Amino acid sequence: MTKVDQILIASSIVTMDPTYRVVHDGALAIKADSIAAVDEREKILSVYSTENVVDFGNLTIMPGLVNAHTHVPMSLLRGLADDMRLDVWLLGYMMPVERKFVSPEFCRLGTMLSCAEMIRSGITSFADMYYFEDTVAEATALAGMRAVCGQTVLKFPAPDADSFEDSLASAANFIKKWKGHDLIIPSVAPHAAYTATQEILAACAELAIKHDIPLHIHIAETQNEVEEWRENYGMPVVPWVKKLGVLDAKIIAAHCVHIDEGEMHTLEHAEAGVAHNPSSNLKLASGFAPISDMLDIGLNVGIGTDGPASNNDLDMFDEMRLASFIAKAVTNDPTALPARKTFEMATIMGARALHIDDLTGSLEAGKRADLIVVDLHTTHNLPHFDHDPNAIYSRIVYATKATDVTDVIVNGQWLMRDRSLLTLQEDVLYEQAEQYAREIDAFLLEREGSVLSKLIAIGGAEQEQSYEVQIKVRLPDPAGVKAKLDEGVFEVVRTAHYHEYDTYFSFPDPEKARLRYREDEFVDANDEVFNVRARLTLTGPAAEREYPNSVLLSRSRFIAPARYTPRFYREYFKPSSEISIHKDRLRWLVRYESLEFFINIDEIQKPYIEGFFLEIKSRTWSRKDAERKAELISKILETLDVGDAEALTVEYPDYVRDRAR
Amino acid sequence: MTKVDQILIASSIVTMDPTYRVVHDGALAIKADSIAAVDEREKILSVYSTENVVDFGNLTIMPGLVNAHTHVPMSLLRGLADDMRLDVWLLGYMMPVERKFVSPEFCRLGTMLSCAEMIRSGITSFADMYYFEDTVAEATALAGMRAVCGQTVLKFPAPDADSFEDSLASAANFIKKWKGHDLIIPSVAPHAAYTATQEILAACAELAIKHDIPLHIHIAETQNEVEEWRENYGMPVVPWVKKLGVLDAKIIAAHCVHIDEGEMHTLEHAEAGVAHNPSSNLKLASGFAPISDMLDIGLNVGIGTDGPASNNDLDMFDEMRLASFIAKAVTNDPTALPARKTFEMATIMGARALHIDDLTGSLEAGKRADLIVVDLHTTHNLPHFDHDPNAIYSRIVYATKATDVTDVIVNGQWLMRDRSLLTLQEDVLYEQAEQYAREIDAFLLEREGSVLSKLIAIGGAEQEQSYEVQIKVRLPDPAGVKAKLDEGVFEVVRTAHYHEYDTYFSFPDPEKARLRYREDEFVDANDEVFNVRARLTLTGPAAEREYPNSVLLSRSRFIAPARYTPRFYREYFKPSSEISIHKDRLRWLVRYESLEFFINIDEIQKPYIEGFFLEIKSRTWSRKDAERKAELISKILETLDVGDAEALTVEYPDYVRDRAR
Repeated sequence: MTKVDQILIASSIVTMDPTYRVVHDGALAIKADSIAAVDEREKILSVYSTENVVDFGNLTIMPGLVNAHTHVPMSLLRGLADDMRLDVWLLGYMMPVERKFVSPEFCRLGTMLSCAEMIRSGITSFADMYYFEDTVAEATALAGMRAVCGQTVLKFPAPDADSFEDSLASAANFIKKWKGHDLIIPSVAPHAAYTATQEILAACAELAIKHDIPLHIHIAETQNEVEEWRENYGMPVVPWVKKLGVLDAKIIAAHCVHIDEGEMHTLEHAEAGVAHNPSSNLKLASGFAPISDMLDIGLNVGIGTDGPASNNDLDMFDEMRLASFIAKAVTNDPTALPARKTFEMATIMGARALHIDDLTGSLEAGKRADLIVVDLHTTHNLPHFDHDPNAIYSRIVYATKATDVTDVIVNGQWLMRDRSLLTLQEDVLYEQAEQYAREIDAFLLEREGSVLSKLIAIGGAEQEQSYEVQIKVRLPDPAGVKAKLDEGVFEVVRTAHYHEYDTYFSFPDPEKARLRYREDEFVDANDEVFNVRARLTLTGPAAEREYPNSVLLSRSRFIAPARYTPRFYREYFKPSSEISIHKDRLRWLVRYESLEFFINIDEIQKPYIEGFFLEIKSRTWSRKDAERKAELISKILETLDVGDAEALTVEYPDYVRDRAR
Repeated sequence: MTKVDQILIASSIVTMDPTYRVVHDGALAIKADSIAAVDEREKILSVYSTENVVDFGNLTIMPGLVNAHTHVPMSLLRGLADDMRLDVWLLGYMMPVERKFVSPEFCRLGTMLSCAEMIRSGITSFADMYYFEDTVAEATALAGMRAVCGQTVLKFPAPDADSFEDSLASAANFIKKWKGHDLIIPSVAPHAAYTATQEILAACAELAIKHDIPLHIHIAETQNEVEEWRENYGMPVVPWVKKLGVLDAKIIAAHCVHIDEGEMHTLEHAEAGVAHNPSSNLKLASGFAPISDMLDIGLNVGIGTDGPASNNDLDMFDEMRLASFIAKAVTNDPTALPARKTFEMATIMGARALHIDDLTGSLEAGKRADLIVVDLHTTHNLPHFDHDPNAIYSRIVYATKATDVTDVIVNGQWLMRDRSLLTLQEDVLYEQAEQYAREIDAFLLEREGSVLSKLIAIGGAEQEQSYEVQIKVRLPDPAGVKAKLDEGVFEVVRTAHYHEYDTYFSFPDPEKARLRYREDEFVDANDEVFNVRARLTLTGPAAEREYPNSVLLSRSRFIAPARYTPRFYREYFKPSSEISIHKDRLRWLVRYESLEFFINIDEIQKPYIEGFFLEIKSRTWSRKDAERKAELISKILETLDVGDAEALTVEYPDYVRDRAR
């Protein structure tokens, strides 16, 4: 008799070995961290002996699930922001909160919370990509799980690195520290092509090849990414990263939602693993990944949960079911991605995709003892049919719930026994996680209460002059004013002609802020657009003082370049109302009594208003200066022969709104 | 103080009332079967009193979920057959098993098993459609659940009715019996347009209108159904059923995967409810229902699990998440079907779709006390963010699992308390369900072992003559034989010319059966096809006896019209190999010495074989007759001047296979 450390007995053992053997009335012998043998109970008990025999009765033993792509610390951001477009979610919520809160402590806690959830739901291995990955690796090892831990490298500053040189250096140290660990496989994770430079990608590839460790990267997650690459580089993402040597490393390519057949062959040739994330791809509306095609070509496709901030959980049973369902619906073929193949993706093929199939993914002698025990005899999973040998996979994929997992062993060590976690204290994690949530809530509530804070959170607002003098007069025909200006009644500093598209967002209390998204199309003498500029202007409520023929405004005023679309700003700022005004503007910057004034001749095209407006405007940091300008405006109007026109002191959005009433 | 029967206290009560009120630190007072009041704890306790106060601590009370479409007895067929096309699944497995096993006992047990699963997962109301619905209603009422129970009406014989007149009559009795019951709302369920006649649909509509009860029907589940309707009736399904008066009843339209905008407006105008079944639609590859459009138009869309044979469970939390995910992915818009709207579909809007929103679907004074208690403080659902009031819906839809439901009350009665079922004994159900599974396994295993049984299971095989004599000779040029026949050497009974497309399926032991799918295109003198016929022929192994220039075969031979496609038969019969042969055939039926013989001149076009074959063949029930014919064949060959040609006694598929080797 050979002495082993543990023998597990169960009515069924699903091995996922190359013959897809399912052992009925089976047993599995564990010696130290590895599987000594899997066979029928009688055979095992006649060869192996131990004091530790655990009989699981009618439960089923199967390989632990492999979560092929996630960001584990993000469990602390679960449900923080949902039902949003990717840019609003990422730029408006995730990144500002990460900038503020992500620290080694945050990553440690989030990792432990995620490990608790993953162990409960039968995951034994995962591939992670986040910041402070050294802390993630430490917490994972303490929890006893197996993971490919990827230190993120970005071209811009990250919570754990001021520059990409820093993050590359820390990735190198991270790899050296963890290489050879029993549970942790270190990896380098350039986040994506669009968040890296060519230099970063080449350096990451070199690092991964040098240390023979996986390189984890997001590839072609959205249609936008692919369109941008085709436009800028004349090729999609996969051949582009290939040219930089990235595919010479052991690749874990996350998402691959929008890759073509050529790219699939390239990835297959490179022996890359693909991580398919069905929940995340659907919830963020990234698209339907062509999984059936990838599998036909022979790619190793694993299944991942992605981060719990975009999922919102870490439930591989859900992901399996979804992967199969979606493949069927998209190919219009209910025989696509059948249950056994789906379970294979979540186990041994997932392990292959992570380049750790020598260690895990199936129950075979010599592999590490990474296994789970599952109750298939539940109200939602009975009765059992046995006329088809694939029925057991059908039960696992189509009807088993994550909560049916009763016991988990990784590397020979018990992590959960009869639904009790052995390496993590959930109560303590809950309390600490809730504390973070309260702080993040407070941060966001303060920000949500202030349009300015929200503007600053997405970067780049500058304060502008606090004082503004202005006047408008209606002008049935602008010819006279134009003629005067052409005559040279004032010194003209410069002139411009543009179409101005303004969208004014209004907000309720407390700040009564107004945010303008303004897009100017500058046109030349032939009315051809030669330049476009988009800006945001945030103004607070104005203190007004009226002068004869002018008004002096004093208010806060912030300006920022508008990098995103009006749609982004609308969804991010959630205004209570909005109004759009399009105008054609001729503008003169003139000097009068050594002071500068803008003179605009505006035609309001949407909503259409007959005639023209003459607007005279000037801004300054100085109250005194403003007062002097306010007095001068009457003289300018007289010089332009419109001194007796009725003066409007109201601003365009208010004027348009009042007319509409 | 007003006396009530029960007061429930919880940290949050999600009401789904018209203002979407969420009461924090709330209480709910129950008097008999109804909700007396929902409000803050202090307010309730200052107005209502009872000896039964249950404090759920930090759990959440919410309306019970409404499962808008299912077939509850089918839990007994869960996992029976998966990863198959709809026709193979339905015609090859479900229907034969239903024909054999569905009885009142089957329906009672299946309903109880499903009720146990639904109560556990937080469902309090459902809309069912099956056979023996009286038994379904009885079992549901015993389990204490609320249901719209629909007695199925079909144009062909069903397990509970020999004719549609029978099933209509039993539907009428069923309705009279259950009308006015506390828990059961009877309904009539013409299964679908394609399984009904116009007469049936009109009669069902009349019945539903007369008794003011819902009419439950499958509408446009597959693209095929819609295409067939457009082809045969020049319109899609909704206007067609409208013309028959169906929409004048209170409709529950299940699936509606392939309806256009006009049909949506028609349904909305008729105040029809739609039952959206995301898992089933994906798993059977029926398609993506245009839910966002339906909701925009104002249709009441509920969410359903469909039957557990095609899902494979009854988990509305899964369905909610899937409904939202799919809507986002299909519209390419992650803001589509946000969490609150999704939860609305699964509660109050679902109740509206079933025409029972006066009773259930939200927690409001006066409605029946149908509610569930859910633990949102779990490892997979923490932390909680509160800066956005919709975050609680996000938790419910995106991260809550069916197993987080702890308590269920329907109509004021407790059905589950702290995860223990109070009205059903699961152990007993398991045992009985497993007993059925063993019997069904045995039935299917026996059938799977016999191609003939499988052929008979899908209907219509007839035994044909057991004796066959035949001979083939190769014929470089058929002109001579044709000339002889034209000369009138034999009496010609009839002639035909057709292209014959044969697919031969072979099977391994024990029967060595061969199944031929044969499609004949009959062509006229101009080689134009004027008729097409498809048939199946199943032959067993032959006992042979050779004669000079002929062979006499004795074997079992069954023939059946081929109603489905070769693809169907391939997936249903799962042959071990197959071979296709296409030939052009000129056929004469001749009389010789008072006996009939077929004379064929065949040209094998695929796989191409040069030259022609002359085949002479005759079949009979009589051995003696066969022997006489075998002897006559030599004379026929001589008469046709091919008496010295080499005779082939082998059949075409064997000839072709041998040549290929």
